[in-house]
Amino acid sequence: MELLHLFGTEHQKKTFLKPLQQGQIRSCFAMTEPDLAGSNPVNLATKAVKEGEFYRINGHKWFTTAADGAGFTIVMAVTNPEAESPHQKASMIIVPIPTPGFRLIRNIPIMGEAGSGYFSHGEVVFENCVVPKENLIGIEGQGFALAQERLGPGRIHHCMRWIGICERVFDMMCRRAMERELHPGKKLADQQTIQNWIAESRAEINASRLLVLDTAQKMEQFGAKAVREDISTIKFYVADVLMKVIDRAIQVHGALGITDDTLLSFGTDTNVELGSMMGLMRCTNQL
Amino acid sequence: MELLHLFGTEHQKKTFLKPLQQGQIRSCFAMTEPDLAGSNPVNLATKAVKEGEFYRINGHKWFTTAADGAGFTIVMAVTNPEAESPHQKASMIIVPIPTPGFRLIRNIPIMGEAGSGYFSHGEVVFENCVVPKENLIGIEGQGFALAQERLGPGRIHHCMRWIGICERVFDMMCRRAMERELHPGKKLADQQTIQNWIAESRAEINASRLLVLDTAQKMEQFGAKAVREDISTIKFYVADVLMKVIDRAIQVHGALGITDDTLLSFGTDTNVELGSMMGLMRCTNQL
Amino acid sequence: MELLHLFGTEHQKKTFLKPLQQGQIRSCFAMTEPDLAGSNPVNLATKAVKEGEFYRINGHKWFTTAADGAGFTIVMAVTNPEAESPHQKASMIIVPIPTPGFRLIRNIPIMGEAGSGYFSHGEVVFENCVVPKENLIGIEGQGFALAQERLGPGRIHHCMRWIGICERVFDMMCRRAMERELHPGKKLADQQTIQNWIAESRAEINASRLLVLDTAQKMEQFGAKAVREDISTIKFYVADVLMKVIDRAIQVHGALGITDDTLLSFGTDTNVELGSMMGLMRCTNQL
Amino acid sequence: MELLHLFGTEHQKKTFLKPLQQGQIRSCFAMTEPDLAGSNPVNLATKAVKEGEFYRINGHKWFTTAADGAGFTIVMAVTNPEAESPHQKASMIIVPIPTPGFRLIRNIPIMGEAGSGYFSHGEVVFENCVVPKENLIGIEGQGFALAQERLGPGRIHHCMRWIGICERVFDMMCRRAMERELHPGKKLADQQTIQNWIAESRAEINASRLLVLDTAQKMEQFGAKAVREDISTIKFYVADVLMKVIDRAIQVHGALGITDDTLLSFGTDTNVELGSMMGLMRCTNQL
Repeated sequence: MELLHLFGTEHQKKTFLKPLQQGQIRSCFAMTEPDLAGSNPVNLATKAVKEGEFYRINGHKWFTTAADGAGFTIVMAVTNPEAESPHQKASMIIVPIPTPGFRLIRNIPIMGEAGSGYFSHGEVVFENCVVPKENLIGIEGQGFALAQERLGPGRIHHCMRWIGICERVFDMMCRRAMERELHPGKKLADQQTIQNWIAESRAEINASRLLVLDTAQKMEQFGAKAVREDISTIKFYVADVLMKVIDRAIQVHGALGITDDTLLSFGTDTNVELGSMMGLMRCTNQL
Repeated sequence: MELLHLFGTEHQKKTFLKPLQQGQIRSCFAMTEPDLAGSNPVNLATKAVKEGEFYRINGHKWFTTAADGAGFTIVMAVTNPEAESPHQKASMIIVPIPTPGFRLIRNIPIMGEAGSGYFSHGEVVFENCVVPKENLIGIEGQGFALAQERLGPGRIHHCMRWIGICERVFDMMCRRAMERELHPGKKLADQQTIQNWIAESRAEINASRLLVLDTAQKMEQFGAKAVREDISTIKFYVADVLMKVIDRAIQVHGALGITDDTLLSFGTDTNVELGSMMGLMRCTNQL
Repeated sequence: MELLHLFGTEHQKKTFLKPLQQGQIRSCFAMTEPDLAGSNPVNLATKAVKEGEFYRINGHKWFTTAADGAGFTIVMAVTNPEAESPHQKASMIIVPIPTPGFRLIRNIPIMGEAGSGYFSHGEVVFENCVVPKENLIGIEGQGFALAQERLGPGRIHHCMRWIGICERVFDMMCRRAMERELHPGKKLADQQTIQNWIAESRAEINASRLLVLDTAQKMEQFGAKAVREDISTIKFYVADVLMKVIDRAIQVHGALGITDDTLLSFGTDTNVELGSMMGLMRCTNQL
Repeated sequence: MELLHLFGTEHQKKTFLKPLQQGQIRSCFAMTEPDLAGSNPVNLATKAVKEGEFYRINGHKWFTTAADGAGFTIVMAVTNPEAESPHQKASMIIVPIPTPGFRLIRNIPIMGEAGSGYFSHGEVVFENCVVPKENLIGIEGQGFALAQERLGPGRIHHCMRWIGICERVFDMMCRRAMERELHPGKKLADQQTIQNWIAESRAEINASRLLVLDTAQKMEQFGAKAVREDISTIKFYVADVLMKVIDRAIQVHGALGITDDTLLSFGTDTNVELGSMMGLMRCTNQL
């Protein structure tokens, strides 16, 4: 949605952005590919070949979040294979759904859950999928640049949600530690190992929050490009904290922690995160 | 099954062990409780009160593996609340299924999977469940001692299975590292981080195997009691290695690693382990 | 110095604080004891018994930083052994140097270096060391409270210095990684392990700085007591970061890192830290 | 010594090995260089140019252990710069001490200690240092192969000594944990963090011992080449365990752990290790 708002033509805004904003349709973003290093947008196998007034698209994507039921997808495809820089080969093109040749193969089951609708990750194919050349966003070869524009702020959003999950999980850990008795009069919270986990988690969550706030503040002031390093830093730092905090909370809950009787087991398979992300997208219609 | 073989009366062997050996029925073991520190068998709320020729059992258990469809359960219950030592309060008693008052509430969903039959973990209640006093295994107050007898070798079995899982997952990690290209001509295996993970995993799996073999050898020679420390050591050491190796393998597989397209996502939620354990139990009828 | 400034009598200020401020003498602080858990000021063996107009002090202290050459020491000693709360048993008393019965046994050698003057840690004894009762700071039993007053801000100072050391060591690590060739055309900086260390160090140093700034800001606003938890948090978090960053920098320097040809080997034995702390104290006459 | 025993000529054995065996002289080994990646013997700047019946050697080495007072050194120098394989460029040549042009610049101070004699690490230069061509060991270009022959078993020796250090340090840690009281009646050993450290240390030392024994056994059976991977594995695994165990032991000793009042502070700066290595070399005259 951001992308269309910022870079879409009048025609694109009217046709795709407006119904999106009015909640009539949903969109999805097809970038990651199963056959090549997925999260690296400079190394794509999907091609969009210009034929007169059209693009003919062929390729295989997955982790196309919320493809199930979407009204259109924005696909990242190589339009300029001969470009000198690998960062200038791909473009973003709008593919209305349904378009002949576009197919949702499945919602990918993640740790046992395939999900549906918003809460799903699609594996999709483009087989001789033809769309008008007006569906190109921006100019040819600009796909990578547009993705960067979108991914920087996106990463800050991710980190913020992760911190929210950490706080919730931290509270669960503390509550459990205070409630659970090992022997009469001896609580989990009296155990030094548990105390260590709580102290380390608190320090790491505090550090995460301050790092993310600092990055957001600098981004506002100096722009996304100037804080590229900070964004990379919070991405791996906060993700690592998230995993550590959830893991400790599960340990504190014992066998209960891996059952579906708490939220924690969802945390480990990133469903909380995905669910949470979806929740946010539902509100902001971020795409 | 081991327990009945070693400590059962003639009557118990004929009634419960024989059909178990012939594969006509299955058994299960109800020890862990949801309300008290679960894995601590000296702290149980379940009571078995002797009334004439019978025991009246009341209590709440969970993680009663394979309770679903079992022919009987062996329940760990307090018969001697006044015993001096907390290790001499509980007894093991056979409860045929069905017996009025025994109820399987549910198979506990673990990371989204409730399973069934062998591959399940039951939550069960005993409400005024009455069985003949002949169903006591060994003598009153001996429950903890019998459990110890069974848990020592059981832990070595667990560690052996975990090592098997580690080896399988290690192979997957190496294969993926050799196959996956980041850029043309640059494989995951060329990345030093991946090389570090593989080297560390290899060292830790080798260490695990030698520790477990050494413990098993000493146990055979000197008995389970003499190697209590070694058994505790491998239990936490190998469990930790298992988690680390699976985690690294998932990282090497990227997004693929958390989908159900590989075995790895099962590993993290212990289903591989549980499945594997079940497989073994099916062969050996261990209980 | 802070203590005397805030809590000293007019007489104390004139006799001890003034020459301290004018740089004519130095002071030291004798709290930690070798025989009991050292850093725990509620568990002291040193006693100060009131006899008429005097205190008679007996005890054994160590890690009395800069005792070598000091003009007086402030000793923490039990004056009220019968106090109900363990936090109200000890007092702070000024002992001029020399006073009969006070003796500096040695400067404690730390990783091979005993140091001298400011840059030393004394082991001292008080054997029937008698001082006038006017040398008591504050009131009897207030020692622990006064120490707390002083340790909170002190810990923030420590963390700030540690961050300074981290930054210096981080620069050395980066420079070395860019300069050192493994093979012609292949630098240390091209190795992913080195890149990981640099990225993790950067994230952790940034986190440390933000946590310390946040704590300092809150302390200014709400007082030391309100941020007790934050102070504890930065104390263990930043200390841990310091050790990790120095360790990585040493690894990047290879054998050179443990020689005295770089600063790094001092870092590991806390001499950089101590030296740095001394440097700071020299400027601010903190004690 | 091993090298000369296995690969020396009769002349070399008579001139250098015999007095070495009789304890009249000591030897040292000059491989590592300060200017290039030190421990990589395929990347050497030191040259030995054949001139008629002599080699003229120029180069700069350091970490030439025990150079101080040695009767000769074996230097690793490039004799065949044009060799195709980087592993066939260097040779080992005996340089008697004194020989004009050979100079011990200094014993390198390591964490404050320069040491002397056996217990030292020399920085040495070869400036137009001329020796007869009979001093070549084996054939030209064989230096790397000979080094490998020597380093494999050497690494097993290192690991064995490290395990010895670990055991000693582990005992100190346990003793201290049992003796040191935090509060009356509460020992360090009662703290769960300390218990964790002891359990983890025990597991890791056991794992180290079994890995080293297993490698040694295989090496005896199948030769050093067949166990190259195992030797690499124990080298990093046991070194890591050594550092972790010493670090925990220091923590358990508190401030005492970094003073020279215990052995521990030597452990961290590898002096224990070096001392121990020297001790062993004294017995076996390994070089």
